[in-house]
Amino acid sequence: MTGLEGYSSPSSTDLERLRRVLGPEDVSTDRYDLITNSLDAFPGEVHLPDAVVWPETPAEVSEVLRLANERRIPVYVRGAGTGLAGACVPVYGGIVMNTMKMNRVLEVRPLDFQVDVQPGVIYDQLNAHLAPYGLFFPPDPGSSRSCTIGGMIANNASGLRAVRYGVTRDYVLSVEVVLPTGKQMRVGVNVFKSSIGYDLVRLLVGSEGTLGVITGSTLRLRRLPRHRMTVAAYFDSIEGGVSAIGSIRQEGLEPAAIEFLDRVHLELISAHSSVLLPSHECMLILEFHGYSASGVGDEVRAAAAILGESGAVLVDLPRDPEEEQRIWEARKALYPSVTRACRAPITGDVIVPLSRLMETVMKAYELGRRYGVRVGVAGHLGDGNIHANWLTEGRDTDSWKRAWRANAELVSYAISVGGAASAEHGIGIEKKEFMREQHGDTLELMRRIKELFDPNWILNPGIML
Amino acid sequence: MTGLEGYSSPSSTDLERLRRVLGPEDVSTDRYDLITNSLDAFPGEVHLPDAVVWPETPAEVSEVLRLANERRIPVYVRGAGTGLAGACVPVYGGIVMNTMKMNRVLEVRPLDFQVDVQPGVIYDQLNAHLAPYGLFFPPDPGSSRSCTIGGMIANNASGLRAVRYGVTRDYVLSVEVVLPTGKQMRVGVNVFKSSIGYDLVRLLVGSEGTLGVITGSTLRLRRLPRHRMTVAAYFDSIEGGVSAIGSIRQEGLEPAAIEFLDRVHLELISAHSSVLLPSHECMLILEFHGYSASGVGDEVRAAAAILGESGAVLVDLPRDPEEEQRIWEARKALYPSVTRACRAPITGDVIVPLSRLMETVMKAYELGRRYGVRVGVAGHLGDGNIHANWLTEGRDTDSWKRAWRANAELVSYAISVGGAASAEHGIGIEKKEFMREQHGDTLELMRRIKELFDPNWILNPGIML
Repeated sequence: MTGLEGYSSPSSTDLERLRRVLGPEDVSTDRYDLITNSLDAFPGEVHLPDAVVWPETPAEVSEVLRLANERRIPVYVRGAGTGLAGACVPVYGGIVMNTMKMNRVLEVRPLDFQVDVQPGVIYDQLNAHLAPYGLFFPPDPGSSRSCTIGGMIANNASGLRAVRYGVTRDYVLSVEVVLPTGKQMRVGVNVFKSSIGYDLVRLLVGSEGTLGVITGSTLRLRRLPRHRMTVAAYFDSIEGGVSAIGSIRQEGLEPAAIEFLDRVHLELISAHSSVLLPSHECMLILEFHGYSASGVGDEVRAAAAILGESGAVLVDLPRDPEEEQRIWEARKALYPSVTRACRAPITGDVIVPLSRLMETVMKAYELGRRYGVRVGVAGHLGDGNIHANWLTEGRDTDSWKRAWRANAELVSYAISVGGAASAEHGIGIEKKEFMREQHGDTLELMRRIKELFDPNWILNPGIML
Repeated sequence: MTGLEGYSSPSSTDLERLRRVLGPEDVSTDRYDLITNSLDAFPGEVHLPDAVVWPETPAEVSEVLRLANERRIPVYVRGAGTGLAGACVPVYGGIVMNTMKMNRVLEVRPLDFQVDVQPGVIYDQLNAHLAPYGLFFPPDPGSSRSCTIGGMIANNASGLRAVRYGVTRDYVLSVEVVLPTGKQMRVGVNVFKSSIGYDLVRLLVGSEGTLGVITGSTLRLRRLPRHRMTVAAYFDSIEGGVSAIGSIRQEGLEPAAIEFLDRVHLELISAHSSVLLPSHECMLILEFHGYSASGVGDEVRAAAAILGESGAVLVDLPRDPEEEQRIWEARKALYPSVTRACRAPITGDVIVPLSRLMETVMKAYELGRRYGVRVGVAGHLGDGNIHANWLTEGRDTDSWKRAWRANAELVSYAISVGGAASAEHGIGIEKKEFMREQHGDTLELMRRIKELFDPNWILNPGIML
């Protein structure tokens, strides 16, 4: 059914044709180009492609796909390669299509809250471009400094602010796409809502490059909040911190971020960054956005009271932007500190209903003990999204294998309590093994949709499905 | 390609089999049952089915579809029949499947902000059920008193509050569905976000019953706002009212509703309801929701200032709940007043980017003049959604035909300025003719998806595609 066999490599004639279409500088078989385009941030399998191409227009993308489809050459679409699940790793070789040369912000339409972008635009650069208009594109992955909009769409990326603002899926109005046959089309309409047939836009968002190559999109934007305030709280028990999250949400407060860091992470950040944090069992960081200072202040005071009632030993209401910034610097130092402390961390990503949050966090610690791997829990716990970071002793050690097993068991646990194998990192090659457990019979339906779009399975074969 | 031919009618043997499966009381060929199940709120074509069935379980739905698929009998899925586009009209006869007997709220999980519902649950009844928990399901169609959740999902319904809270699509976490082959499956995961493969949930939402029968769903809920305030403003020009909307949104205010009523509607409401409204060119009604009274107050004051600057001749800040209620009663009296004043109104529904709002509203008036039909403009203008109401002289008059032509021209105009043929009423049979204009080549892709789910085109044939 999957049809994952009988692929060709690009022949010298194929490469010649590609060079004619794209220009010789946009086709490479150079060994170092192959290597730098073979990995994302998934520390798993390594596969080299046969060639890398950098199309500059949708027409060029179309030509590459037409050739690949005729000759049955696999094509792997790649943005900045920040993905954590291996969704652009060329499992079956073939061509890596790097979208980084299509990197222009085409038009901002502030009255419509819309921007047209090419797929290779970097997230932070887009928001820098939008700031003078007082607008922003809310979904904010941790890799915001380098990840591309095309990758975010392919992955349905999100981040800290999803708890209030939602995920990439909620902001893509229309998509310009090239199908595996080379056919170019535009799907979606640039309006706030519609009821006009099947939602092809959301079928493409999160499809991890398996249905088509995104060559452009129109994104919905939001107004930058006029006022924002941060609250931090420290707890002497994990239970206190986790239960405070439920209480905050039950109160009807709508923070723009509800971040959780446990003792393991607090210590790593203090040890490996310029930020010194008090040592407690866990920390919550909340950010509130709003139109008026008094409105935001009311929410912050209510949150602080709830945090206190939930057993916070210290509630920190920053008095100035510098203090506020220091708190967010701590959060931003999380992954750099983890990677400084540990040669080969494994970053987990699961999501569960809020009522199962506590037991799932506890499960991560239990698995750490059982498998003898140091584990820290962090994440966007406000929406149930847990990142368990497994601090292995290196890729060539037994602890690496044990950590993967512990992580896999946590994924299965999340699925078993009604959660999802991935909240925001995607399936890629990492979590393909969980697709049956997650979806049961509906996996066949996904495969049939894949075949409808890509009868020869040339786009990202071996990824996700 | 569409395969819309060669259908069978249920034979007496088929009806016998249906009666055995569903029980005799849940299968009818009674003439009055056929008539009452043949129409929705679309005042267009009339087609009678051959039989009506009322399944009470997903297994019964599955049996009906299995039979229909074997025998190639069309099946039209029907909730309360409040749709405005004819999406449950049995164009090719066959069986109408009425879902109103599957009408239970199964479980509320307040900690998870989730509810499990059967498809025949009525919107207002669901929210009444949720109110004691302090929760609500935000999308609020005008037909809230009678429309079903299943119909809302099939139609991706929305309403007044979409400008802040979004549409049905944003609130469906998972769906239990029976495919046309009779296969039962559950798609989606009950978490706030995920990245785990193709988004089959959102493929089903808005598919107007053409892909499968929804037999259950889990909806995401929101906390009821602690504070709400209403502002109304009257303008002596359409331009003033419409431009105020853009200014409100540019300011970064996030009203829960931004409603527009023009003079035609104000006069109809004053004449045909218990509410007396001042006579002006147009009226805006804004509602603000928030956590604290002071925060909501700040937004209301800012809005009032903008409304004044935009040329409002009267800004009404209700001082008590009664006054507030009176304003919303005026809005609710809109459609009852229209139907009291006019035997056969035609309700338009288009949406355009905000920057094209003014010209599209003006286009409606121009078309009214050109076609000699009285037209009033109302709608959820805050998100660009215009309802032009064509006040014809009756279905048997020439003005009825002229009104349809004017309405069709307005739809084409909306599409031509980058808008959508329908914001919230759907395609049904009414707007099928615009699918090519709206989608171009991607229409073929939709048809292929239809065939993948429903190879014999038994579900809602003639609807949408």
